[in-house]
Amino acid sequence: MTTVALDVMGGDNCPDINIDGAYDALNKISYVRIKLVGPEALIKEKIISWDEKLKARIEIVNAPDVISLEESPVKAISRKKDSSIVVGINLVKNHDADAFISAGSTGAILAAGQLIIGRLPGVLRSPLATMIPTIKGFSLFLDCGANVDAKPEWLVQYARMGSIYMDKVQERPGASVKLVNLGTEDEKGNALTKAVHPMLSELTDINYQGYIESRDVPSGGADIIVADAFTGNAIIKTFEGTAGVLISLIKEVLKSTFLTKIGALLIMKPLKNRLKSFDAAKCGGAILLGLKGVVIKCHGNANRLEISTAIEKAVKYVEEDVNGLIEAALSESGR
Amino acid sequence: MTTVALDVMGGDNCPDINIDGAYDALNKISYVRIKLVGPEALIKEKIISWDEKLKARIEIVNAPDVISLEESPVKAISRKKDSSIVVGINLVKNHDADAFISAGSTGAILAAGQLIIGRLPGVLRSPLATMIPTIKGFSLFLDCGANVDAKPEWLVQYARMGSIYMDKVQERPGASVKLVNLGTEDEKGNALTKAVHPMLSELTDINYQGYIESRDVPSGGADIIVADAFTGNAIIKTFEGTAGVLISLIKEVLKSTFLTKIGALLIMKPLKNRLKSFDAAKCGGAILLGLKGVVIKCHGNANRLEISTAIEKAVKYVEEDVNGLIEAALSESGR
Repeated sequence: MTTVALDVMGGDNCPDINIDGAYDALNKISYVRIKLVGPEALIKEKIISWDEKLKARIEIVNAPDVISLEESPVKAISRKKDSSIVVGINLVKNHDADAFISAGSTGAILAAGQLIIGRLPGVLRSPLATMIPTIKGFSLFLDCGANVDAKPEWLVQYARMGSIYMDKVQERPGASVKLVNLGTEDEKGNALTKAVHPMLSELTDINYQGYIESRDVPSGGADIIVADAFTGNAIIKTFEGTAGVLISLIKEVLKSTFLTKIGALLIMKPLKNRLKSFDAAKCGGAILLGLKGVVIKCHGNANRLEISTAIEKAVKYVEEDVNGLIEAALSESGR
Repeated sequence: MTTVALDVMGGDNCPDINIDGAYDALNKISYVRIKLVGPEALIKEKIISWDEKLKARIEIVNAPDVISLEESPVKAISRKKDSSIVVGINLVKNHDADAFISAGSTGAILAAGQLIIGRLPGVLRSPLATMIPTIKGFSLFLDCGANVDAKPEWLVQYARMGSIYMDKVQERPGASVKLVNLGTEDEKGNALTKAVHPMLSELTDINYQGYIESRDVPSGGADIIVADAFTGNAIIKTFEGTAGVLISLIKEVLKSTFLTKIGALLIMKPLKNRLKSFDAAKCGGAILLGLKGVVIKCHGNANRLEISTAIEKAVKYVEEDVNGLIEAALSESGR
């Protein structure tokens, strides 16, 4: 049995999507226990109609407080000891849960994960790793924003941890790894990429294939894409911003005249179907790799599918002992 | 009279778009002279049918060699002295032209501009500044890829040079300036942005408005966007890659069935019209700011409009004495 702590109060559509996601996961996976973390009375009311068999595999952990998106993350986690994020993270720290999942404040989850749970022995920094949609499927992108001013050794560890995660949790062994750079020629780069490139080239436990320009990220140019958090954050947010602007612009055109409205009727269903393949909900959120436990951050606008998939991925992570593999790999290399 | 040297051999569609762009510019602007740089015989043949009045304002400068996109830029500019890029850049260095325009190898143009022409007194680095399309119009983005491992002082100069350029060449005085960061809260950032932010906040000659997340670049969140070259390059290329992937995906859907093909007929014209507002050709290429002269890099797939506009912008740059203003501004501040 794997035990997952779920932040009931995380995300724009809380608490319902979290409760519904937990419900789906309990139905799908028979060997998971879920600790629902949030205001006890509220949660009790929400699950009142649940089957007793499902209820037997849940536990309500009272956490009356909530950390809002507006609060300073580091201050909030030290002040709000009764918040769902701090209570949930402490369950992992105290081995009362294997994993913590939240669609709440990214900053608070990152800070609480790193400061309260701490890193596995040998792990220098814990990157935020996200599955991003590309024209070819999904790629793992890390670091998406956890650790600024990166050192070369950190990025080398990201590549190795990401490869283990892709193999064991996403079931993609031998995934190609590329490093984000200004260009793909050997002489191009900044001080960081020029230091990291030869270090990655020497590794035999990952499938490193050299540099990638960010232009080739949306077209699926690599299975695993490594960058420092500042660059990673810039790429992920540009990707989201550009897609959002283009889609809203197309919608505006489709609504503009009588004829385009007819045109919209004809193309809307196939277009939506095609865009569905880009729905990251089925990847189950972003993971903070390398902590003593599992911490998954779902999108702020996560739906029940993303929450239930995140629970599923957390169970797989624990079952496959990904943290054990990471620790073994990094200690073998003397780190 | 302003004299512009134009690389006839630059870009995917050379030499024709360059010749055509020069033709348009000569017709539009009566007080420009153009030096067409490239293989003499070829150019002669291309302009054979031109009116004698136009021919009176051009000169052919023979440059039989071409630097290809595959060559190492720094090696190429030292080896290929007779290439159109090196010959054209030398015209500016020797005051035989005020500006050089090319749609050729970005690396070679950047290297030749910086190494052969050199920077204005007080200018620490010369950033590549590009007008990028947003939902609200166009923003100036710099540095798009010229100087990696940036120092705080460089970015401060980028903001000031960019503001002068926007005012005088793009006719947008008081343009807002923002600095790319992981988030917009004061405590967020890497070492570079945390150093630059207070320095920009103190300036009185620019309209600095704080941080911008890359997500808000495509939606036009600032008139002038400042970043180090590595981040800038990552943002610009992600922007291009995402737009390219989404547009090709929509085309694929529109072609997929009989009904979507009908739908496509109904929406295509309004959609193309709307997308036209994103055509960067009318901005006339990217400029290397802060050199002793004017160097403009057009897109590899530039059309004749982009070339003629680049010529027009170069003329405006010289007429408005932007370099004089940059020198005065940076020397006043003790740099």
